[in-house]
Order: sequence, then structure tokens, then C-alpha cells
Amino acid sequence: MADQYDPDTAHDPQPEQPETEQRTMRERVREAVEARDANELVALFDPMPLSAAMRQLFALDADERDILLALIPVELAARLIEEAPHSAAAELIDRMDPGRAADVMEELDTAMQADLIGDMDDEDAEAILAEFHPEDAADVRRLAEYEDDTAGGLMIADMFSFRDTQTVAAILRDFAREDADLEAYGSGHPYIVDKENRPVGVVSLRALLLSKRTDRLSKIMVSPVMTVPVSMPLFDLQDLFDRHSFLGFPVVEADGTLVGVVSRQAVHDAALERSESESLRRHGVVGDELRSMPFFLRSRRRLAWLSANIVLNIIAASVISAYEDILTAVIAIAIFLPMVSDMSGCSGNQAVGVTMRELSLGLVQPRDAFRVWLKEVSVGAANGLMLGIMIGTVAWAWKGNPWLGVVIGLALAINTVVAVSIGGVIPLLLKRLKQDPAAASSPLLTTITDMAGFFLVLSLASLMMPLLV
Amino acid sequence: MADQYDPDTAHDPQPEQPETEQRTMRERVREAVEARDANELVALFDPMPLSAAMRQLFALDADERDILLALIPVELAARLIEEAPHSAAAELIDRMDPGRAADVMEELDTAMQADLIGDMDDEDAEAILAEFHPEDAADVRRLAEYEDDTAGGLMIADMFSFRDTQTVAAILRDFAREDADLEAYGSGHPYIVDKENRPVGVVSLRALLLSKRTDRLSKIMVSPVMTVPVSMPLFDLQDLFDRHSFLGFPVVEADGTLVGVVSRQAVHDAALERSESESLRRHGVVGDELRSMPFFLRSRRRLAWLSANIVLNIIAASVISAYEDILTAVIAIAIFLPMVSDMSGCSGNQAVGVTMRELSLGLVQPRDAFRVWLKEVSVGAANGLMLGIMIGTVAWAWKGNPWLGVVIGLALAINTVVAVSIGGVIPLLLKRLKQDPAAASSPLLTTITDMAGFFLVLSLASLMMPLLV
Repeated sequence: MADQYDPDTAHDPQPEQPETEQRTMRERVREAVEARDANELVALFDPMPLSAAMRQLFALDADERDILLALIPVELAARLIEEAPHSAAAELIDRMDPGRAADVMEELDTAMQADLIGDMDDEDAEAILAEFHPEDAADVRRLAEYEDDTAGGLMIADMFSFRDTQTVAAILRDFAREDADLEAYGSGHPYIVDKENRPVGVVSLRALLLSKRTDRLSKIMVSPVMTVPVSMPLFDLQDLFDRHSFLGFPVVEADGTLVGVVSRQAVHDAALERSESESLRRHGVVGDELRSMPFFLRSRRRLAWLSANIVLNIIAASVISAYEDILTAVIAIAIFLPMVSDMSGCSGNQAVGVTMRELSLGLVQPRDAFRVWLKEVSVGAANGLMLGIMIGTVAWAWKGNPWLGVVIGLALAINTVVAVSIGGVIPLLLKRLKQDPAAASSPLLTTITDMAGFFLVLSLASLMMPLLV
Repeated sequence: MADQYDPDTAHDPQPEQPETEQRTMRERVREAVEARDANELVALFDPMPLSAAMRQLFALDADERDILLALIPVELAARLIEEAPHSAAAELIDRMDPGRAADVMEELDTAMQADLIGDMDDEDAEAILAEFHPEDAADVRRLAEYEDDTAGGLMIADMFSFRDTQTVAAILRDFAREDADLEAYGSGHPYIVDKENRPVGVVSLRALLLSKRTDRLSKIMVSPVMTVPVSMPLFDLQDLFDRHSFLGFPVVEADGTLVGVVSRQAVHDAALERSESESLRRHGVVGDELRSMPFFLRSRRRLAWLSANIVLNIIAASVISAYEDILTAVIAIAIFLPMVSDMSGCSGNQAVGVTMRELSLGLVQPRDAFRVWLKEVSVGAANGLMLGIMIGTVAWAWKGNPWLGVVIGLALAINTVVAVSIGGVIPLLLKRLKQDPAAASSPLLTTITDMAGFFLVLSLASLMMPLLV
């Protein structure tokens, strides 16, 4: 019933263009940058979907990007910065001159401003804030102090609040004056505060539409209002938005005063960013690398994780070293060592994947380790048996010795159970030890299953040596 | 400035409870289920955060879950179904008797109803729909036909629309009648349609608040209104919501008639779900496994991916088989074979991770493969050199032969460049071939880097044989 989109071209603004013409777009952007032609750049970028604009921006060299962002209108630059991946946005702002940076930042919401300032060196941040109105700068500094991924770190400071002693007419006047619709505020609703600036109620749009202009807000407001503390973490905010259909919650300090609004949108964006960042860390990519980042930064970050990995690898390989005799006697075993360790690693990583997901959904906690282990052992035993039979048959057929098949198959079967047990439980243990399960689970798992796999193959072979040679 | 949350306990409703008391909660739920005590179950579940309720629900056996969901009030059951992971929700509904299932489903929005119906066997779906009001059943059937992750699949059919000939008073009357606030609708705004039911405008809340009751809607509406076709894919919807601050867009059929509203919330949820599902597939977990799923389903799905992997492993290992002579002569090489292949695999997976992220952000497309390759080669060469020196030094120190260090180090250095080249590009190639890059990139990468690694180590060793023995 629905029209079919071609997934390969749907994201492209001009799906029918052949490659050469598309390359021309890249060339045209580059030429406009070289010619410092602001009008041409606007003409090229304005009609593009944001994703296409991002692709063009990040296809440029860092220097060209700087020139482009300096040439285009402040509003367009702000829109690009706003949509850029979190890990790249601060860098883009940081490379502008402070005056320009301040102009662009003034187009962003306060939560984004605080994020960017928090990600910069103090010196650069101060240079930009010096260009701000002192009051705004104080706001941003205050917001930047809250932890990322808490209500304080995610909220905007632009509030839509009224005193309980005001009337409906006050809100309507405010509306008539403002350019933006209610949506510009994090929540769709005006909050009502008492004289200490503590939220005491909220006015629904329905109440607003159906009441008289002279009505006191304290009369039509719904009370009490739900608030969240500045320190509430992302996970709890997600839970709150899952339970309630509100578009936002008022955020309060410990003394109960209203300091901002955290929107459903901001919480969702943060959750998506966290999920993607976690997926990257599991593959040894830290700092949310993009290929547009400087070469040395990329190389150094990747190398840090790889170097730790190499140490773990050496530890695992030392097991093989202890069994050189049996290897020399039955050289065919060397063919199967990497297979057993790799297949066990795969099984174990499946278990890691499921546990990471259940952690992110809040379905398991570190204390559930035993229950998780029980569930994994049964699947591990079934799959280990199947995989063991497969690889054992291959070993037998390949080398013509059934006992070799028994050794390899048995080793893989047992090691699969070991791998899923460890894989299922290790993220929970790391979480309990307050380590990052996303970054550390897989290397630890692989080391242990490698060692166990090598040991199982080689010690079983030693036991059955007379049958193998 | 912000209070500190302990991340380990923050998600727990009673963080101070020792383990034994927490276990008591699980026991109490189980006892209430066994005693069929609906009141006790409501008393236990109602005050829990949804994430805790989910954890309790999924800690039960499948039979106990069925009993619990049959006992508790329809509203609570619906709330749990709504918040359950997508992959589990249809199963939960499917196991209810059709009458109960229909009652629970009536509490959900139409998009969710259609999702659940779409995920069930036709027979079960029809049994449930037979309990629906025929008109509602027709709505759900219609929605279920749209593709997942398109505007049609994500939209709700509950519309908040008025004819252009109506007046402001009509909207206000509607408001006064409805229990729900505007937020219950996917978009915060009433849409205005012509007599063919085609959207012709939208009324802002500000306009509604500031206009007279007798004003014609055609007078105060903003026109034209942006619409999206039912076939618009998730990626484009994300782009649209990034560019515009609207809470929703009207969804139209090919003939321009209004059929639903797709909300920012629905698009965000789908994006998050897709990101998590992709992360799982990269670890060989398909069907978004949860440990609460039936044993055979979990085992079979994992095994399917592992079996494909074992074939790839055998192909890679066949390289070793061709070099048994050199292995027999220099048995120490057997120790380093798994290290070289594992380390290369890690480097390559980092490159896969970055490309997958850039794909999901829309920063690269299949046609950018060459540019990605250039960026990877430089990082690969730098990191390969460093890793090669590290492992070469270890090999030399361990076995006392500098030439062994040269062979191993050189093989790892070259293979790192191979691995990042393939890792960076392979997701783009798979996407161009319309294969799933999330599920297939890593196994293909590992196979190729294993083969290349084995070949490099063993052929370099063969060349330098006289220096090694």
C-alpha cells in the first residue's frame, strides 16, 4: 500500500544524480569556499536536508570548514553546529574567533551553550563568554557546572513561568509578544511559582483556552506540580517520561527553586547519543571518533585501547607456549587453536550483547548475575554441543583422525559454556565495580576465553596424545 | 553543585535495601502470583518505577507472567505492555486470551496496536481483532499494512482535525469535551482540512488563544501546512524533526488525504530502538533477544549466526593448513598466529565502528568508500607500526630471536593496514549491495583479516626460514 523507497538513495536530496554530478556538488562547495563566496555557499546549503549539509561540511578539510562557518550567516552556522555530532560541535566552535563564536552560540539554546562551553578549554571558554551579556554568561557558567546526563545538564534555563498571583491575561500578553509558539519552551505548559520561585502548579492549555482572562492563575492551575531535582540521572528521567505524557518537567535546586525545564526531546537525544556512544566503546572507539577529527587524536585514542588489548593477548598466548611439545607432535592442532578461540569469543560476545541490552533497558542489575548465568549456561550447553559436533566432524574429515575431532569438538563445546557464562555475567560485574562495561567487557571476555580455549584444546590433546599421532 | 547520585543504586526504588530484602520483593510478587492475589499485585506494582516493574515482570517464568498480566487491571497491564521492549510485547499479548488481549490493546494508541497485530500470526491477530469494534479493527488492519519505520508505520490514526469552514468555537468545544490535553495527540496542533480531507493549514496555539470564538479557522490558520507521505522512511523523518521544532507532522496518502499524525516522540523511539537493535546485530544477536524469551528460540537464533561464522573460520584456517612445514620447523609461530589475527581484528572493528556511526549520522554514503579508505590507511599505518614494534619486541624478548620479532611485527603492521582498510569500507559495500552492514561486517572482516594475518606471518616466516630456526 505504501510507496516503496529505495533505501540506498532515499537519504539523498537528488537521488537520480549520477556520481559525477554529485561529486560536482562537493566540488562546488569547495570552490565557493576557496573563492570566499558567501552567497554561493548559502545558495548551496540552504536547500539541502540537514543530513546532506552535514555530509558536505564533514567532507571538507578542517581549514575549509573554518572558512565556510565564518562566511555563512550566523543562523545557518548555528543550525549546522546544533545538528553536528556532539563530539564535533565544540571543536567547530572552538576554532572560530571568539566574537563569531559568541554570535553563533547566542542562536543556540542554553543547554547547548553550556554543553559546548563545558567541552572547551577554560581559556577558550572564557574568551567566548567575555563576548556574552554578563547575565547570560553567568547563566551558561552555572549550567555548565551540572553533570552531563543529569536533569541539570540537560535542562534549558529559558523558563515560561508566572507568579500564582497573576491572571490569565498575563500569559496571553506574553504570548502575543513572543515570536515563538509554546513549543519553543521545553515543556508545552506555563509553570506557576510562588514568591520564592518554587513551582506550585502548572496550567494546562485546555484550562487556558477555557478560562476567563481575569481568572487568577492560582485558581485554574493544577497543583501540586511534579518537579525533578537537578541531579536526577538520565535513566530516571527516561523512566519518568515513559510514565507520563508531559513534554517537560520543571527542574529544581535542592531548596526547591525553579532553575530550568528538562524536555522530553533533550532526554531522548541524550539517550540516543549514549546508546550510540556505548556501541562504539564496545568496539574500542572512545571519544566518539569521526573521521573529520585530527589524525593524531584518532590514532592516539584507538592505540590506547589496542595497546591494552595486546597485553591481554600476550597473557592468553602464554598458555600456548607451555604446550609446545604437543604442538610439535600434532601440528594440525595449530590450525584449530584460532578457530576454537574465535568461535568461543563469538558465543561469549552474543551473551555480552544481550546483557548490555538488558542493562540498558533496566531489566537486569548487578545482583541478577546468578540468574543471568543460569539462563546462559543452558543456551551455551546446547549451542556448544552443536558447534562442537560441527567442528569435530570437520577436524575428523580434514585430518582423517576421529580422535582429533573429539579433542577439538569437546574443547569447543566446553569453552562455549565458559564463554557465555563469562560473557553474560562480566558486564554486570564491571558495573558493580563501577567500571565501564561497554569498553571493558569484550577484551576481558576474549582474553579469558582464549586462555580457556587454548588450555582445553592443548591439555585434552596431551591426555589423548597416543591416539593423535 | 548538583547532588551526586550513586549510579549503582540510583535506578533502584529502594536503594538502601540489602539483597535479602530485595529478594523478598521478587518472592512477594511470585507468592502473589501463585495465590492469584490481584490486590496484592496491584499494591506491589503500582508504586514501582516502570523500569523496576519491568524487571520484576521479566524475572518471572513465562507462565507466571501470563497469570500476572491476566490478574492485574487492564490499564496496568497495558502500561506494562507499552513499556516492554518491542520484541517482547507482541509475545505477551499473544499469550493472553483474545478477549483480554483486545481489552488491553484498546488502552494503547493505534500505532502500537498496529505494531502488535503486525508482529503476530494472522490467526491470533484475527482472533483479537474480532473482539474490536469493526471500525477500529479496520483502522488497525489498515495501519498494520504500512512498513515499519516509515511515517505510515509510526503514525497514530487519532487525529485532531477540523474543517476550514468551522470556527474557533468548534475547537474549544472539542477541548472542553475531551479528557485529554492536546498532548494526547501526536502533534500539539489542530490540523485544518478541506472537504476532500486534505490538510490545508494548521492552527497555532497562540492564534487559538488570541483569536475570537467566532473567527473562521480558515482565517487564523497558517497555510500551507507541511505534510509527509506515508512512505517516508525513518531517516528522513529524523531529518525533518531536526530541521523543524514541530511536535508532529500530518501524514498523507498519495492522493493527499490526511490519514494520521507522526509525532516527534514516535520517531525518536523508533530511532533509539533501531540503534540498539543494530548494536545487537553486530554481536550476532538477532531478533532483539531477551533472556525471558523461550529457550529454543534463543538457542536457534544465536546458532544460525554462529554456524555461518564457523564456515568462515574454516576457510580462514585452511591458510594455516598450507604451511604446516614452516609451523613444524618454527613452532613458536603457533603462539603468535592467534595474536596477530586477533589484534588485526580489533583494529578493523574500530574502523567498522566509526563507519557504522558515520552511516547512522548520515555523514557517509556508499559512494564515499574511497575517501573513507584514504582516511583509514593513514591511521592504520601509524597504529600498525606501533603495534608491530610492540609485538615484535615481545616476540624477540620471549624467544630470543630478533628475526622472529621482525616476522611477527611486520606481519601485524601490514595486516593492521589491511584490517582498517577493509573495516572502514566493508559496511559501505554491504550497504550498496543492500545487505545488513550491522550483522555481516564483523564476520566478513574477521575472516579476511584472519586469512591475511595467517598468510603474512607464515609466508614471511617461510621467506626468512633460515634465520628463524
